[in-house]
Amino acid sequence: MRQKIKIGIAGYGNLGKGAEIAVRQSTDMELIAVFSRRPLSSTASGVPAVSVAEAAAYKDKIDVMLLCGGSATDLTEQGPFFAAMFNTVDSFDTHAKIPEYYARMEQVAKSAGTAAAISIGWDPGLFSLNRMLAGAILPNGEDHTFWGKGVSQGHSDAIRRIAGVKDAKQYTVPKHEIIDAVRGGRESAAPSHEAHTRECFVVAEEGADKAAIEKAIVTMPNYFADYETGVHFISEEEFREKHAEIPHGGFVFRTGETSPGVCQVIEFALKLDSNPEFTASVLTAYARALYRMKQHGFTGACTVFDIPPGYLSPKAPEELRRELL
Amino acid sequence: MRQKIKIGIAGYGNLGKGAEIAVRQSTDMELIAVFSRRPLSSTASGVPAVSVAEAAAYKDKIDVMLLCGGSATDLTEQGPFFAAMFNTVDSFDTHAKIPEYYARMEQVAKSAGTAAAISIGWDPGLFSLNRMLAGAILPNGEDHTFWGKGVSQGHSDAIRRIAGVKDAKQYTVPKHEIIDAVRGGRESAAPSHEAHTRECFVVAEEGADKAAIEKAIVTMPNYFADYETGVHFISEEEFREKHAEIPHGGFVFRTGETSPGVCQVIEFALKLDSNPEFTASVLTAYARALYRMKQHGFTGACTVFDIPPGYLSPKAPEELRRELL
Repeated sequence: MRQKIKIGIAGYGNLGKGAEIAVRQSTDMELIAVFSRRPLSSTASGVPAVSVAEAAAYKDKIDVMLLCGGSATDLTEQGPFFAAMFNTVDSFDTHAKIPEYYARMEQVAKSAGTAAAISIGWDPGLFSLNRMLAGAILPNGEDHTFWGKGVSQGHSDAIRRIAGVKDAKQYTVPKHEIIDAVRGGRESAAPSHEAHTRECFVVAEEGADKAAIEKAIVTMPNYFADYETGVHFISEEEFREKHAEIPHGGFVFRTGETSPGVCQVIEFALKLDSNPEFTASVLTAYARALYRMKQHGFTGACTVFDIPPGYLSPKAPEELRRELL
Repeated sequence: MRQKIKIGIAGYGNLGKGAEIAVRQSTDMELIAVFSRRPLSSTASGVPAVSVAEAAAYKDKIDVMLLCGGSATDLTEQGPFFAAMFNTVDSFDTHAKIPEYYARMEQVAKSAGTAAAISIGWDPGLFSLNRMLAGAILPNGEDHTFWGKGVSQGHSDAIRRIAGVKDAKQYTVPKHEIIDAVRGGRESAAPSHEAHTRECFVVAEEGADKAAIEKAIVTMPNYFADYETGVHFISEEEFREKHAEIPHGGFVFRTGETSPGVCQVIEFALKLDSNPEFTASVLTAYARALYRMKQHGFTGACTVFDIPPGYLSPKAPEELRRELL
């Protein structure tokens, strides 16, 4: 029997907990420990909960560390810290800062002799892969991305920072008439703020000024001001009952012409009951791929573009050819 | 300026003509010649039409040869013949014989020091890639593939071989109620013959026995006997007017659970006005990737599973990270 791939998880929020589940579903992997900054009493799977400060002691005990820090800010510190000791997979998602983050991780990982897969997940990640693939196949065409219906953690956080808001959840909702027009191959390059609406479910503090909260939301620059935004005040009880889940999803299309009037459409879509559990499943599959890249001598930073897809599967190359081609 | 990738096309049917168009759309490529067994008077793009017998003279003038032979039978000969001299990309699609074909191409290419990408296209090809990816991410799940609505060349050929048939075209049509059930995450593992119908448009010879033709079609083992099959006799004129195109497409889904009751759906879909032009566009993008694999020292046979996706794009790795991640 092959030796199992030894996995560590750094960060134990929604994503880290999802990773714990995903590793358990992977029969070729073994979870060694969960690392966190704040002390944890225990983990769902019973593996040791270890302080990040003690991570160095696990250097030779873990093949790949899944970085599940809660935010991009976490990762800019966590990434280089762990990549200096471990092979790492992360979901760094601040699009504009990816080149800078890549350069830092490349430098740290190269000098440490480790491998670091960055910006893994679905967007960036699987969506990026499909945009790239479709663009290479249909050079004469146009890309469209729609997100949702799903929870945007960043927008939910932005609402929660408004005075008088006790809790909030924001759903990004794509406009189906635009999706249908694109899927039908009819041109339609609507900007994101015209192709989506934002629906906000807000629990206000007792006695809070709801009109002021609503105004603060719908006029918030970058987040809401450009969008059709709906604000719904609900009770704490309704919030707990109806808005506990973290669904998400979306569509990437490319429509292109190979000859004049000959339209070709490539579409990739996700419909996710749980965004963190799915993202963690992607990280876990890429941990397997990174482990193999490393075995073939790779060091440094890489992305979904650099990794031979077959490395993601637990199946051997001959099985893949026989069963899945 | 970078040197252009020099492409040859072997075979000048629908697929070869599609490849000629796809290479023209690729600004980093240059078409050198079209090779065919039967003498061609000219090519649409004006490049030389060369007899296959003279291919050896082009050994150092072509970086990648696109094998556009019309059938799997062509490729079992054409593949090893060309791989002994050129880097090749082909769309070998007899699923059951892929391991055998791979072994042969691996042996020929390895000993010639060439690279051969086999079974490239959309099924096998992009569909295989998505099945593999989705299976690696959602190990606890189920795959579904639907084809169509589109023309099956093999089934059309089978009808044309029936006595009394002048021309025919067969469309494979997926049953939308089953697609919707799967997309909605509701379990539904219908076998292919229950999930699709077959619609046949037939031009009969003058005075032919239409009832006998219909019976020969609907009872044909492997091709039609297990399917709901519709047979429509039409005039030659209507055939020319309404059935000249070669559309196709299909869907690959995977539905899986990450936790009990937490359903995740990954979907990849194609909607193609022209199957051969699209398939040729896929071959062309993989020609670029194969050229780069070769530059990095690769020799032997490979498939969609082995090729780092970023190699497909004309963009540099740093552009891909900046623009598409």
